[in-house]
Amino acid sequence: MLETTIGGARQARVGYRLDDVALLPSRRTRDVELVDISWRIDAYPFDIPVLGAPLDSVTSPATAALLRERGGAGVLDLEGLWTRYEDPDEPLAEIAALEPGPQATRRLQELYAEPIREELIGRRVEQLSQHGFAAASLPPQLVERFHHVALDAGLDLLVVQGVAVTAQHVGLEGTDPLDLRSFTGRYDIPVVVGGVWSAKTAIHLMRTGAVGLVVGNGGDPNSTAADTLGIDAPLATTIAEVAAARTRYLEESGRYVQVIAAGGLRTGGDVVKAIACGADGVMLEQPLASAEEAPARGAYWGLAAAHHELPRSRYERLEILGTMETVLEGPAHRDDGTVNLLGGLRRAMGVTGYETLARLRDAELTVRA
Amino acid sequence: MLETTIGGARQARVGYRLDDVALLPSRRTRDVELVDISWRIDAYPFDIPVLGAPLDSVTSPATAALLRERGGAGVLDLEGLWTRYEDPDEPLAEIAALEPGPQATRRLQELYAEPIREELIGRRVEQLSQHGFAAASLPPQLVERFHHVALDAGLDLLVVQGVAVTAQHVGLEGTDPLDLRSFTGRYDIPVVVGGVWSAKTAIHLMRTGAVGLVVGNGGDPNSTAADTLGIDAPLATTIAEVAAARTRYLEESGRYVQVIAAGGLRTGGDVVKAIACGADGVMLEQPLASAEEAPARGAYWGLAAAHHELPRSRYERLEILGTMETVLEGPAHRDDGTVNLLGGLRRAMGVTGYETLARLRDAELTVRA
Amino acid sequence: MLETTIGGARQARVGYRLDDVALLPSRRTRDVELVDISWRIDAYPFDIPVLGAPLDSVTSPATAALLRERGGAGVLDLEGLWTRYEDPDEPLAEIAALEPGPQATRRLQELYAEPIREELIGRRVEQLSQHGFAAASLPPQLVERFHHVALDAGLDLLVVQGVAVTAQHVGLEGTDPLDLRSFTGRYDIPVVVGGVWSAKTAIHLMRTGAVGLVVGNGGDPNSTAADTLGIDAPLATTIAEVAAARTRYLEESGRYVQVIAAGGLRTGGDVVKAIACGADGVMLEQPLASAEEAPARGAYWGLAAAHHELPRSRYERLEILGTMETVLEGPAHRDDGTVNLLGGLRRAMGVTGYETLARLRDAELTVRA
Amino acid sequence: MLETTIGGARQARVGYRLDDVALLPSRRTRDVELVDISWRIDAYPFDIPVLGAPLDSVTSPATAALLRERGGAGVLDLEGLWTRYEDPDEPLAEIAALEPGPQATRRLQELYAEPIREELIGRRVEQLSQHGFAAASLPPQLVERFHHVALDAGLDLLVVQGVAVTAQHVGLEGTDPLDLRSFTGRYDIPVVVGGVWSAKTAIHLMRTGAVGLVVGNGGDPNSTAADTLGIDAPLATTIAEVAAARTRYLEESGRYVQVIAAGGLRTGGDVVKAIACGADGVMLEQPLASAEEAPARGAYWGLAAAHHELPRSRYERLEILGTMETVLEGPAHRDDGTVNLLGGLRRAMGVTGYETLARLRDAELTVRA
Repeated sequence: MLETTIGGARQARVGYRLDDVALLPSRRTRDVELVDISWRIDAYPFDIPVLGAPLDSVTSPATAALLRERGGAGVLDLEGLWTRYEDPDEPLAEIAALEPGPQATRRLQELYAEPIREELIGRRVEQLSQHGFAAASLPPQLVERFHHVALDAGLDLLVVQGVAVTAQHVGLEGTDPLDLRSFTGRYDIPVVVGGVWSAKTAIHLMRTGAVGLVVGNGGDPNSTAADTLGIDAPLATTIAEVAAARTRYLEESGRYVQVIAAGGLRTGGDVVKAIACGADGVMLEQPLASAEEAPARGAYWGLAAAHHELPRSRYERLEILGTMETVLEGPAHRDDGTVNLLGGLRRAMGVTGYETLARLRDAELTVRA
Repeated sequence: MLETTIGGARQARVGYRLDDVALLPSRRTRDVELVDISWRIDAYPFDIPVLGAPLDSVTSPATAALLRERGGAGVLDLEGLWTRYEDPDEPLAEIAALEPGPQATRRLQELYAEPIREELIGRRVEQLSQHGFAAASLPPQLVERFHHVALDAGLDLLVVQGVAVTAQHVGLEGTDPLDLRSFTGRYDIPVVVGGVWSAKTAIHLMRTGAVGLVVGNGGDPNSTAADTLGIDAPLATTIAEVAAARTRYLEESGRYVQVIAAGGLRTGGDVVKAIACGADGVMLEQPLASAEEAPARGAYWGLAAAHHELPRSRYERLEILGTMETVLEGPAHRDDGTVNLLGGLRRAMGVTGYETLARLRDAELTVRA
Repeated sequence: MLETTIGGARQARVGYRLDDVALLPSRRTRDVELVDISWRIDAYPFDIPVLGAPLDSVTSPATAALLRERGGAGVLDLEGLWTRYEDPDEPLAEIAALEPGPQATRRLQELYAEPIREELIGRRVEQLSQHGFAAASLPPQLVERFHHVALDAGLDLLVVQGVAVTAQHVGLEGTDPLDLRSFTGRYDIPVVVGGVWSAKTAIHLMRTGAVGLVVGNGGDPNSTAADTLGIDAPLATTIAEVAAARTRYLEESGRYVQVIAAGGLRTGGDVVKAIACGADGVMLEQPLASAEEAPARGAYWGLAAAHHELPRSRYERLEILGTMETVLEGPAHRDDGTVNLLGGLRRAMGVTGYETLARLRDAELTVRA
Repeated sequence: MLETTIGGARQARVGYRLDDVALLPSRRTRDVELVDISWRIDAYPFDIPVLGAPLDSVTSPATAALLRERGGAGVLDLEGLWTRYEDPDEPLAEIAALEPGPQATRRLQELYAEPIREELIGRRVEQLSQHGFAAASLPPQLVERFHHVALDAGLDLLVVQGVAVTAQHVGLEGTDPLDLRSFTGRYDIPVVVGGVWSAKTAIHLMRTGAVGLVVGNGGDPNSTAADTLGIDAPLATTIAEVAAARTRYLEESGRYVQVIAAGGLRTGGDVVKAIACGADGVMLEQPLASAEEAPARGAYWGLAAAHHELPRSRYERLEILGTMETVLEGPAHRDDGTVNLLGGLRRAMGVTGYETLARLRDAELTVRA
C-alpha cells in the first residue's frame, strides 16, 4: 500500500483513478478472434463480463432482456420507480425531459417520495424471469422486509446494494439490520454485495458468503459523495486493493469471489483498465443509459439524486450513441471509445497478447507522473 | 512530516489541501440517528461544531443569535463595520450591491477608513449577550486597548484573530504588543487565537493559555496572501499538523485545546474532511454568508479586502442558498454539498461508522496521486 | 525503473510524457554553426534526423522526394490510399475538406474500404525509387503477402508498422504470421519495426535483426488508444527505456539499432526532448502534414481513424505553416516552435553545448514536480 | 537534489516553479516598519532589491532614472532599440500598437534588423550616468567589440546577458569568444552575468569574477524556449540550487556573489518566494513594463521575440497598473498582488517575523502535493 502522511500526523493512502492508469503492451500480440471474454457469477456463465447497473436510468425489465440476449445481465433496482409505480413509463418520460439543475433534483425527490409497493416487487421479478434470468437489487435495510416476495417470484441473483455496505451495521434499537451471513446461510440464492470501498470491508463481506462484490463509489459515476460527505475512493486503487483481498480470501477459504467494477466506466478503455486492475467483470451505467433502448431516453441519475434531505448524485442528459448492441459491440463511427466497448476490450487483449480476462489482470500498468 | 527539497538545497514540506483528501468508509456503518456532533469550547457546550466567522459578511448580532439558536455560536468582529458605524445597515447595503473588481476594493477601503468607536464595542457585546452568549474578536494589536470595554459589557468568549498571530510579536518601540500569557492569566474569559499556520506557532500559543486555535490561512477563504505575500498553508496539512501538536501539548500539560478549522470550508464534505484531518470544530464563512439572513445579502469579503495599502482578499457575490437553518440542516435540493452541511457530516459519520466527532478523527484517508 | 503500486497490489511504472520533461543547459555553450545533426540507418546516411511518417496525410511520393532533397526520408504507407487508388488525389481532396467529427470518421471508413491493389504497390515503390531512396511501410500481417512486389520494385528500406508490433504474434490457424527473424535472414533489405511500446518488446525485436525501432503509441499523435483500448505509453519514458534496452543489446550483440521517436512531436522542443531522452532520430507527423506541399492540404488522421469497427485516431485540420523547407529549416515568424524545427534542434545543441546528436543524449533533464 | 529516473534509464531532476512553492509563517511576527529590504551589488548599496530588466519594454534611460530615485537600478539593453535608433520613440510607439500574433513577430524582426551603432552606445551610457548610476547589458558575443565605448562613457555596472551564458563557449574559428575571467581581471567595473540555469554553470561563472548572477530562463518571462528548444529551468529549483552553489563558492573563496532572480516575477508574492528560495534581489520585467512610464506603454516582449530565424519570446500587451511608484510601493486598489510589490515583500517579512532579506532566506517553505 502506497502510504503518505498529511502534516506528519495523519496517514493517508495514495489513490489512483482509472484516468491515471494505462496498460502497456507486452512482448506478444494476438489475433482478436483468439480472445475469450466470458466469465461467470456463481453457477451462472456469461458470454460478456457486463452487468447493467441497478438504476432506473439503466435497467428496466426490457433492457435486462436485451442485455441477457447479448450475453450479460441487467440488474433491476427493486427500490426504484419500477416498484413504486404500476406503470413507470410516465415518470420516466417526465424525468427524461428535465433540464439539469436544482429543479430536476426537486422533481426527482417528489417522484421518488412515492412508496414502494410489495406486490410490484413480485411482479417485476416475474417479468425478469420470463427472459431466463432474474437479477435485482435491494438496499440492505429493505432485504429482510422484501426478500421473500422476490425469492418467491423466482429471483436468480440478489444484489444487495447501498452507497456503502458493510458486514457490521450499527442500527437504531428496534430496527432489524441485515445479517448477511445468516441470510446467505438460509437461502440458496447467490448474493452480490456493494458498494464496497476498501479491502477491509471486502474481506468481511466475503466471509458472509457473498459471491461477488461491486466495487467503487456506491456504483454511481455521478455521485457527489466527495462534496456532500467528503468520501471518495479512487477506483483503480480500490479495485486493485479489493482484488488482492479476494486472493487472500481465496487462499483462506478456497472460494473465488467475483470483483465487479462499477461507478463511472464510460469507454472501452475504462473497461480494459478496470479489469487489468483486478476486476472480473464490470457493471455499466452511462454507456447503457445512452443506448437507444435505455429506459429514460438518455437521461442519467443515481438513486441518491432523489434523496429527500441530501441529494448526492447529479442528473444529466446523455447523447444517444446507438442501440445497446452498437454501444457494446459496434461498429463505431466515433473515435472516443464510447461505442463498441467490448470490441475495445477484445482488441486490447489482442494488442497486449492476453487470451482471457484472468490473464489480462497480469498486464503491465503505467501511471501518470 | 513529509519533506522534499527544492534544488537539493532548501527543505520544503509537502502540503495537502482539503481538495486533495477524502475519507474512506470503514468496515462498519451506522444509522444516522446514532451519531453525536456536539462539542465544547472551555466550559461552553455546543450542539453543533460550528462557529460563525468574525467577518462583517458573516456575523452580525442578529445572525449570531440565529446561530446560537441552532446550537452554534457566531463571532462578531469588533474591528469591523459594527464598531465603526452606529448603524451599519447602510454601508452593508451599499457593499451588497458592489460589482466585484478594483472599484469594489476601492469602496471597501473607503468604508473601513471610518475609525473604530469604543462605545460601540460595548454596545455590540451587550447586543450579543441578550441572546445568552457573546463571542467576539479583536486583532492582537487592539486587545490591550479595547478588552476592558468588551469584558465589562459581558463578553463570554474572546477570539484574538489576525492574518497570522504568534506568541512572539516584535513591535515598534512605544507600541504595546499583546502578551497573551499575561492576558489569559489576568482574566477568566476563555481566549481562542488565530490564524495559526503551523505546529510550532500552535505549541507556543497553547502555552499562553488559549483554549482554542483557529487554523488556516487567516480564516479567509478569499485571501490572496499567496499572490500578495507569497504565504500559503494548505489546510489539510495545517490542520493535521496542529492537531498533532495539540496532542503533544495535552500530554505535556493535561489540557485539551480545541482546533478550529477555518478559511474556505464550503460544503458538507469540507466540514467532514477538516474534522477527519484533526479539527474539533469549524468556523464557517461563505456558507453562512450565502444564507438568506446574512448581513450583506450574499456578498462576501475578508477584512483584508479593505486594507488601505495592500488589499489581500477578494470581494465576491454569492448565490443565496436558503435560510441559515436550511444551509446547515437542509433539506437540500442541490446535489453539490453546499446545503445541509450538518446533514452531510452526520451521514458521513453514518457511512464510515463513527459515533462521535472525536472518533471521526480516526477515519482512513486517501489522497490523490 | 521508477515503480509504484496501485492499492498495494498492482505494480505500475511511473510514466513521463515529453511535456513533463525539459533539458537543462550545461556549463558550456557552442556556436550553432558547430553542431552536427546527421545520422544514419543501416548503411544509409542522412543529413537530418527526420523521417516522414507512413501516413497518407504526411507522405506521398512527391513529399518523400522533397524530404529526400532536404536530407531526410519519407516513408510511404503501402496499406494506405496510394495502393488502394490508381489516383489518390480525388479521395485526398475529399478528405482535406471534411469537417472533424463522426461524419469524417464515417467517410474515412468508406474510403479505406477500397481493397489494396498489388500492382499499385510495385508502382509506388518505383515512383519512390526515382528520387534515389525508396522507404515504405507494411503492417506485419501484410508483409508476407506483399513484400515480393515491393522488393522487386526496388525498395530500399522496409518499415514494418502496426499499432503494436511484437516478435511473437499469436494468430488464427491458417493465417501466416510474420516471422521477422526469418524475414531479415532471407533478405538484405534493412527493416525498421514499430510501434514499439516497451523495452521488453524492443529487445525481442532487435534480436530479430531489425535495424531500427519506431517508438511510441503506434506512431500516431491523434491515437485514441487510451480511450478505446486503455493502452498508452508516455513517450519520454518509453524512449528512455527502449534506448537503454538498445544499449544492453549493443553490449550483447555489437550491433547498434536506431531508436526512432514518433507519435506527436510537434515542435522543435519536442524533437530536442525526444533525442535527449534517447532517440537517434524522429519520425514526424503533424509538422509535415501542415506543410504547404502536404498530401491532404493540412488534414491529419492516423490510419486507425478509418478502422471499420473501432476507429482509434482523431481526424483534424491543421493550420498550414509554410513550405516543408520552412517548417523544417525556417525562417520562422511564429514563436511557438512549430516552424524551424531543425533550427530549434541546432540552437538547443548550441545552448547546451553538445556537438552531435549522440552527445545530446547526455543532456541533463528536469521533470515537473 | 531530488532525483527521479525516466524509464529507469535517464536521471532527471525534479523541478519546482515559484507557483509550486509558498512560505509558511514562523512562530514570530514583526511590525512592518521594522523590516529592512536594502541590499548591495559590489560596492553599490540599494534601498530596494529591484533591478529593471535589460529589455526595451522595461528599461529606457528615463525609467532607469525613475527606478534609481526609488532606490533600485534599471539596466539598459545596449543591443536593443536604443543603440539601433537615434530616436527610438518612433519604433517604440509602433510596437506599442501591435496586435499580438505572427504579424507582431514579423514586424519586431524587421525593426531589430537595424544595425547597432557604436556611437549610440556611448551616448546612452552618458544619458544613464546623468542620474548617478549607469547599468547596461551586452550579450557575450558583443562585449569585446563594444565594451570600450561603454566603459569610456562611464558605465558603472555591466550585465553580460544572453539566453544562456556559460564560462566555456565553443565558437567558430575566427570569432573571438568572451573570456570573462580575463575581462574581469582587466577592468574594475563590476560584472553581473546571466542567464544562469544551473549550479554547475554558476560555479564556473563565479570563478570568472562575476559579482552577481541573473538566474532563470534567460530573464524572459515570455520565453518560449521550452517549445522552441526543449529547454526550461523551473525557477524555484534553479534559484535554490544556484544559491547553494553561491554558499559553497563563498566558503571556497570568501567572496559573496549576488543571486538575482529574473524571468517572470509578476506579484509581490513572486518576489517574496524568489528571495525565500535563495535570491538576494530580483530583476523585474512585466511589473515595470506595465507602469505608466514604461517605454512601450504596456507592451512587453523579450529580445528573442525579434530573432530573425527562430523567434523565442511572446509579444503581449499588458494592462497599465499605475505609476512605477505605485506598482512598487502602492497603495494598491487591486487584491491580486500585482501592485505594491515591495509592500507585499515588507508585509511578508512582518508576517513571517524576519527582519532582513538575508533572514527571509531561512523561511519555511511548503510545496504543493
